[in-house]
Amino acid sequence: MTVKLALIGAGRIANIHADAITSRRDAELVAVTDAMPKAAQALADRTGALFKSADDIAADASIDGVLVCTPTDTHADLIEKFARAGKHVFCEKPVDLDLARAQEVVDIARDAAVKLMLGFNRRFDPSFAAARHAIDEGKIGTVEMVTITSRDPGVPDMGYASRSGGIFRDMTIHDLDMARFMLGEEPVTLSAHAAVLIQPEFRRIGDYDSATVILETASGRQAVITNSRRATYGYDQRVEIHGSLGVASVGNHRENQLSIGLADGYQIAPLMNFFMTRYTASYAAEIAEFIACIAKDRPPSATGEDGVIALMLANACLESVEKKTRVAL
Amino acid sequence: MTVKLALIGAGRIANIHADAITSRRDAELVAVTDAMPKAAQALADRTGALFKSADDIAADASIDGVLVCTPTDTHADLIEKFARAGKHVFCEKPVDLDLARAQEVVDIARDAAVKLMLGFNRRFDPSFAAARHAIDEGKIGTVEMVTITSRDPGVPDMGYASRSGGIFRDMTIHDLDMARFMLGEEPVTLSAHAAVLIQPEFRRIGDYDSATVILETASGRQAVITNSRRATYGYDQRVEIHGSLGVASVGNHRENQLSIGLADGYQIAPLMNFFMTRYTASYAAEIAEFIACIAKDRPPSATGEDGVIALMLANACLESVEKKTRVAL
Amino acid sequence: MTVKLALIGAGRIANIHADAITSRRDAELVAVTDAMPKAAQALADRTGALFKSADDIAADASIDGVLVCTPTDTHADLIEKFARAGKHVFCEKPVDLDLARAQEVVDIARDAAVKLMLGFNRRFDPSFAAARHAIDEGKIGTVEMVTITSRDPGVPDMGYASRSGGIFRDMTIHDLDMARFMLGEEPVTLSAHAAVLIQPEFRRIGDYDSATVILETASGRQAVITNSRRATYGYDQRVEIHGSLGVASVGNHRENQLSIGLADGYQIAPLMNFFMTRYTASYAAEIAEFIACIAKDRPPSATGEDGVIALMLANACLESVEKKTRVAL
Amino acid sequence: MTVKLALIGAGRIANIHADAITSRRDAELVAVTDAMPKAAQALADRTGALFKSADDIAADASIDGVLVCTPTDTHADLIEKFARAGKHVFCEKPVDLDLARAQEVVDIARDAAVKLMLGFNRRFDPSFAAARHAIDEGKIGTVEMVTITSRDPGVPDMGYASRSGGIFRDMTIHDLDMARFMLGEEPVTLSAHAAVLIQPEFRRIGDYDSATVILETASGRQAVITNSRRATYGYDQRVEIHGSLGVASVGNHRENQLSIGLADGYQIAPLMNFFMTRYTASYAAEIAEFIACIAKDRPPSATGEDGVIALMLANACLESVEKKTRVAL
Repeated sequence: MTVKLALIGAGRIANIHADAITSRRDAELVAVTDAMPKAAQALADRTGALFKSADDIAADASIDGVLVCTPTDTHADLIEKFARAGKHVFCEKPVDLDLARAQEVVDIARDAAVKLMLGFNRRFDPSFAAARHAIDEGKIGTVEMVTITSRDPGVPDMGYASRSGGIFRDMTIHDLDMARFMLGEEPVTLSAHAAVLIQPEFRRIGDYDSATVILETASGRQAVITNSRRATYGYDQRVEIHGSLGVASVGNHRENQLSIGLADGYQIAPLMNFFMTRYTASYAAEIAEFIACIAKDRPPSATGEDGVIALMLANACLESVEKKTRVAL
Repeated sequence: MTVKLALIGAGRIANIHADAITSRRDAELVAVTDAMPKAAQALADRTGALFKSADDIAADASIDGVLVCTPTDTHADLIEKFARAGKHVFCEKPVDLDLARAQEVVDIARDAAVKLMLGFNRRFDPSFAAARHAIDEGKIGTVEMVTITSRDPGVPDMGYASRSGGIFRDMTIHDLDMARFMLGEEPVTLSAHAAVLIQPEFRRIGDYDSATVILETASGRQAVITNSRRATYGYDQRVEIHGSLGVASVGNHRENQLSIGLADGYQIAPLMNFFMTRYTASYAAEIAEFIACIAKDRPPSATGEDGVIALMLANACLESVEKKTRVAL
Repeated sequence: MTVKLALIGAGRIANIHADAITSRRDAELVAVTDAMPKAAQALADRTGALFKSADDIAADASIDGVLVCTPTDTHADLIEKFARAGKHVFCEKPVDLDLARAQEVVDIARDAAVKLMLGFNRRFDPSFAAARHAIDEGKIGTVEMVTITSRDPGVPDMGYASRSGGIFRDMTIHDLDMARFMLGEEPVTLSAHAAVLIQPEFRRIGDYDSATVILETASGRQAVITNSRRATYGYDQRVEIHGSLGVASVGNHRENQLSIGLADGYQIAPLMNFFMTRYTASYAAEIAEFIACIAKDRPPSATGEDGVIALMLANACLESVEKKTRVAL
Repeated sequence: MTVKLALIGAGRIANIHADAITSRRDAELVAVTDAMPKAAQALADRTGALFKSADDIAADASIDGVLVCTPTDTHADLIEKFARAGKHVFCEKPVDLDLARAQEVVDIARDAAVKLMLGFNRRFDPSFAAARHAIDEGKIGTVEMVTITSRDPGVPDMGYASRSGGIFRDMTIHDLDMARFMLGEEPVTLSAHAAVLIQPEFRRIGDYDSATVILETASGRQAVITNSRRATYGYDQRVEIHGSLGVASVGNHRENQLSIGLADGYQIAPLMNFFMTRYTASYAAEIAEFIACIAKDRPPSATGEDGVIALMLANACLESVEKKTRVAL
């Protein structure tokens, strides 16, 4: 079966997903829509898809699924619209910044019997997936502790930041999902600390730029997340999982493999500093997974429910910081 | 200007180059030909190009250049044909296994005032290019020694090997070009040693599977190449350039960034074991260079002449092994 | 000046310090005492020192300083005894498990105008010291976050563990001192989580084997400590300091520099798995520092006061775990 | 049994060996001699040994063995003297710069039934020894190629260089021994290239500062040695052994484990830049081996004969360079 897909949105990430689809033989990109017709038309031209309205896409019985790549505040409505139209939906995270609304559309998708996959792309990164696979194979024994380092290369613009839901719902949410992915047990309590250390403007919008979180599960497993909105040396994305038999560590990706050895030491390349470069392979793999879930009628490995739980954890982080206490989940 | 290109050949490497062209905005793939019409048609369909005959491509005044991706024994004739037709030519190495014929078509291309670029793709690898750039910037001072480790992941099939011209003309030739690229001076003498250590069949076809070469320039700079037709741990591609101020080293690419630490030590991923995966970026970069050379009318940085010299060095390696002596160039 | 020193205790760490002293030209080991005469005599014989009683050492006006290397519950009394006798004192951590008593003997030493140096040896490790030096030079800008990974190679025996004061006062205390050393600001609040994941016996003695701590300073700087009583892959001792300009990271020491590359990946050596091997250089350096402080009459860089603060932080960790809350300091 | 040893020479390396002996319980340093009485007396004082004449040491029946740590031109005579006196002899390489004289004293030692061990300390380095051990265990299969990188941190002074026998007999000789140690087969032919690239004074004394050598065994195994008298980034000492199943690689030792990540990349420490620091463990291990050979009456693993063969290979390198040809051995 060739899975027929439509792109809702024609921005940066939509273009990435478009390339992932056209490079595959088991899927076809048939339609694109966007609030900005020019962007939609350009993407359609580049890929051989057609520029259509969202309504036409929803009404087109030949389309199996859609990829929602629009601003966050439109996600929930679009999921609802296309789920009700019987389309499988891949949606960039988060489902919605409001937990109740997020849960609502997850329920709608479930009731409509369509697949709802969340864009937690890091689960599909070859290295993180290999770590998860090593755990599943028992290589490191029972998981005990997870350490997640996640530092963005540069501070986002304040316009984006102020609409993002804040560091916990915008950035940490990826790491909260990663913690769950690796822990293999749900957290039952958490402590979060956060501060503005980089850019005072974050204080003005009631946000933070630096945060650390401890999650603890019922059996005592612990996950630690450290976040910063700025890492001069590149996009720092590391995970360690410590188990009873050993440790699985995922290291960073560098811009190149050159080192220069001089009298005062060796100079090696900074880290890749753009999420699309660092996670190129994971974007392609998550789209392949969405296509496979439709073609083989199996549930996605990152679901709307995962999105709801991650959002709930992000909200708890904020509560922990604001109330200066540990939060039971 | 949009550079219009045609692919001569529709095999594995032609498909790679096709993707590199279609992903760019400064070039267009307009035609494909191949001795196997089915392969040519499939590639044409996939890319929106037209399947045409080689004669039609040569006669099409709108086509600026061609990429010759056919078997080695057709290279020289195709270069000649398209050069005479006024097309710029990108050709996979080698120009020809016969040195005189190779020089002849290089001369033809020069007389026809078309650009002839050789597919020494490694020069365009981001890490090797960064090393060359560091040398040019004076970071390691005057170059003194170059060390090239080049080990294929697995033995080629004997059918390919027997038509390949032998290890020196098929495999070492890339490293001989890399040595020249990094030395910054022409070699004037060389010593080569070779043996059959891996697969006895190489002996039957008069070839070797393991080789080491020292090149020396007039000022005494030395380059060492070690080659093996098999590396169980992946595709081993390293270069070190030692200079008066320090060393530039290019390391390998691993399959992933996962390490597993256990009681008996750490396990890390093997090297990428396929040349197309390892050199993905360099293939895209060499095509970008060919396009830029046409668009901006500048000479390519890996020329037909470079191909002739590399072949001459490969022949000298063979002579050194067979006569058990050092060879003056 | 040659600094004359006596060893109080003749066990494992005393022998290490004895070697550090005898290898130096600016110090002399003149006396040794121990509750076990045989051990004291053997160490005296090996080093050319004399076996004396603690009282004789205290009374010997030629002795400048003593190194207290006895069980924890004797530290405070011995510090008091030798401080009152006018000897400079180097003491293994902790000063005492009781905070009031620890503060008392620190005050006694101060009033006696003798130097009291605490054996926070990691501050003297060449790599950690180089990190601190890089911070002092401004290389990474203003410190923002510190991440400390500290995992023992193997679970201590339960007899030792039950007298140790628990994981926070025995093990984390080193990391709490390291956090202060690198943060450059005192923590004002902390959250700690702990569990028994490795060996159920820890539960029986009211202790934990796995812990994570977040420390926060008044300006919002954060330090994260992760601890485990067991790391199969060796003694895991890493520190990262993130600043406004970059990151300083101290990695682990391996048993050797051999890697074996095979078809299923590379195998590299486990970490050094014994604290005396990993920290050989830091033990020598802290003794050199103690000698220099006496010879040059300057204050030690790890004082009794540092010991008291670290103990206070360790107690707060325990309180945070037990009360399931964040603790203000 | 406690092995009683005497040091012939009291310079830098003699002091290193003295420490190795006194730290052990199975050996005792009983005497020291040196042409400079002051140096001998100082070393004797420091270690509790007696300053004696060489004749007295030779005549002392209680002494089991001697360590010859004097200038090269005295080695052969001292080996002869002490072998004839029935002492086991450890001697720094080379035995003698004259091949015939070297063979003569090796024969004398053999006829005197004393052990003659050569100071090829690198064989005892924990990492190189682990590589050899991995080969012996079959981990990398049949050895095919060996690559040795050996670059001194800094140019020796010309006085030393002019008495040293030249780069091949002074420096490469260690690598020639390492090649034999790892190849597991004797070389039968070699090609060497050398030049003066660093310091013109080497030309004046008829020596070279940069050299590359290929050794080939009867079955076609190849070893490559690259040598330089200067490496700004530290003492570069690496070995790779490629076999039918994989590769064993020994990497360098760095000054510390700190890395600093900044916007323009990561800075890591230079290599240890002093042979005594880099090879601390190997010096201790070779002395332990000499003591064990005497105590257990077993042959040393680096013999006088190994010294003769390495010298013969070094001479062949020189011949290859001077005659510009491959040399059959």
